[in-house]
Amino acid sequence: MTDLADLASVGRDTRRGGYSRHGFDSVELELRTWFEEEAGRRGLDVERDRNGNLWAWWGAPGPDAVITGSHLDSVPGGGAFDGPLGVVSALQAVDLLQAKGFRPAKPFAIVVFVEEEGGRFGVACLGSRLLSGAITPEAACRLTDADGVSFGEAARAAGYDPALMGRDPVALQRIGRFVELHVEQGRGLEVPVGVASSILAHGRWRFSFRGEGNHAGATLIEDRRDPMIPAAQLVVAARRAATAGARATVGRLVPNPGGTNVIASSVDVWLDARAGDDARTREVVAEITGAARSAAADEGCAVEVTEESYGDTVHFDPALRDELAGVLGGVPALPTGAGHDAGILAAHVPTAMLFVRNPTGVSHAPEEYSSPEDCAAGVVALASTLEHLAR
Amino acid sequence: MTDLADLASVGRDTRRGGYSRHGFDSVELELRTWFEEEAGRRGLDVERDRNGNLWAWWGAPGPDAVITGSHLDSVPGGGAFDGPLGVVSALQAVDLLQAKGFRPAKPFAIVVFVEEEGGRFGVACLGSRLLSGAITPEAACRLTDADGVSFGEAARAAGYDPALMGRDPVALQRIGRFVELHVEQGRGLEVPVGVASSILAHGRWRFSFRGEGNHAGATLIEDRRDPMIPAAQLVVAARRAATAGARATVGRLVPNPGGTNVIASSVDVWLDARAGDDARTREVVAEITGAARSAAADEGCAVEVTEESYGDTVHFDPALRDELAGVLGGVPALPTGAGHDAGILAAHVPTAMLFVRNPTGVSHAPEEYSSPEDCAAGVVALASTLEHLAR
Repeated sequence: MTDLADLASVGRDTRRGGYSRHGFDSVELELRTWFEEEAGRRGLDVERDRNGNLWAWWGAPGPDAVITGSHLDSVPGGGAFDGPLGVVSALQAVDLLQAKGFRPAKPFAIVVFVEEEGGRFGVACLGSRLLSGAITPEAACRLTDADGVSFGEAARAAGYDPALMGRDPVALQRIGRFVELHVEQGRGLEVPVGVASSILAHGRWRFSFRGEGNHAGATLIEDRRDPMIPAAQLVVAARRAATAGARATVGRLVPNPGGTNVIASSVDVWLDARAGDDARTREVVAEITGAARSAAADEGCAVEVTEESYGDTVHFDPALRDELAGVLGGVPALPTGAGHDAGILAAHVPTAMLFVRNPTGVSHAPEEYSSPEDCAAGVVALASTLEHLAR
Repeated sequence: MTDLADLASVGRDTRRGGYSRHGFDSVELELRTWFEEEAGRRGLDVERDRNGNLWAWWGAPGPDAVITGSHLDSVPGGGAFDGPLGVVSALQAVDLLQAKGFRPAKPFAIVVFVEEEGGRFGVACLGSRLLSGAITPEAACRLTDADGVSFGEAARAAGYDPALMGRDPVALQRIGRFVELHVEQGRGLEVPVGVASSILAHGRWRFSFRGEGNHAGATLIEDRRDPMIPAAQLVVAARRAATAGARATVGRLVPNPGGTNVIASSVDVWLDARAGDDARTREVVAEITGAARSAAADEGCAVEVTEESYGDTVHFDPALRDELAGVLGGVPALPTGAGHDAGILAAHVPTAMLFVRNPTGVSHAPEEYSSPEDCAAGVVALASTLEHLAR
């Protein structure tokens, strides 16, 4: 039987721990092949859309389709559940439905979105953003990974034509309902399964500080323009600004050239900020940006701020949410601070999410976990949901 | 004619700018081959010592030898002068001496030390430390680069046997005088050439902060143990502690896993600290360490502090310094904040340094510069020095 354990050996990150699986890298391509084979074993027909996403159709594609799925990529050094759990659970739900002789009355597919985490190219939910037009294909294809390979180049190498990428109204309009199952990423769920109510407003901002590279021993302190100083002050300011439920995080900070005995010439810092609504998120980012600009000026450094992505608060379709909570016997609805492809699609089609309990609340880390019992409950809940929607 | 420009295309770092040439990497090996060929063209016999250093002998090796030289490696994204200038100038000085028919009465060699910057394996002056016993071969061979390759493995791949490495009393005892020519790394020299008086006490400390990796959106601020917070506070504390001529620098900071939407599970920070004497250096590092421990405790993080290298203040042999300043017509003597192989050897043999003027004071960066005229003056000064010492 198909199980998350089937993927346990694919993409392990021996340096960071956990898994590193990124859009169009060799590991993600291996997982795609695995998905296509699994879909084929169930009689599903896999379609590769223009933007790098996979659709495994149970029966003919068509309008008012019931769609479920998630992604196979991870953050660098991520856990086993974020993404693959939604794909594996979808395959297992199809197994349950096929075993009981169910045939969907509506078009039905499992989708795998590309580069959901943005772990390689920096912008999260790239596949669903391209599909829905939330990012232009030009902007997406220009994004580069740490080795300077662009998303366009990586897509081409994987067999996709960048010239054909972009908003796909045909694929979008045939989605009747989208349901994504996902491991919960906080400690908000006290029963095995729940449904999502909303996603925090959130975005990513890159701060590029430029100073003067020089010798760490020979350069007097008073002669320095060291971009590491305002970069560090940004980190401190981000923590200070994240009050009253807002979150501000620097998880990625890259000094250039990065030598021990070298004053950096530049430092790039990525800020991840989220809050309950647009105004509060903007306020938090403005406070941090002000502190960063002031610290840069004090050190004689320049700073350039780039909004790499932004998404306003998502409120999942309340009717669908309540309908599914009822089908599942009155499970709770809860908000999340994590972004998802479902959050992108929610602006276009009725969308819902099922969460599977995470006893520690750890996610985006090797310790991410849901028990086998809760995962099984997730599969049963997803099968019930899909049966309800596709009948 | 041999010139620094001959090396201009070797090891350019297109990402960082400048040059990245590191001990036993393909670029440094190419430069070693270049050096062996250049030495051969001058009738010098190249000897590879047990520790990865090259010695090009003009005549037979022997005791009371006059030795000059420097290194061919760079910091990541470094300049063209730091290291290669001393090697190229030595070859050019031999050209001048040979052209005028000089034959050294004493044994005479040009030396190239391996991994002077520590840009690959983290410990500076690795070749001269091994030679002189300042680091054990076991400790050196255990050092690893960013890809996990150990110094021992890299040495073996380059044709050196790690089992034969370590203190080399034969090589050390035959050095009568050692003179290293180097680009000046501050703005302390107002004439083309000067001699060194001293090197600041200096060392490198690694601070490994450990917290809890988690999701940047789903994890409440009050639930976080984010090692980036004390890492940033260390950077700020280092700047605060570096008063009264002391220098403290963080040029290298690596969060793990380093994803934008991931709270880091650990952050490694390297502190480079230097001051006029041992006591002051220790005081600066103690202040920074105290701040780092306190910040880590506040965030619920652990911190481990490792002294990766340390060298007390070096006072170059005063008699040799004054003798050479006199030979060169009364050039000034000046201290430096930069470490050198000459600083390691100074504990064992009479050692001197010649500095070539650096108009901007920039070093360890692509903008590092000395004018062609000053470089030529350096060669003439080095030739005079060597002629004086070897007659």
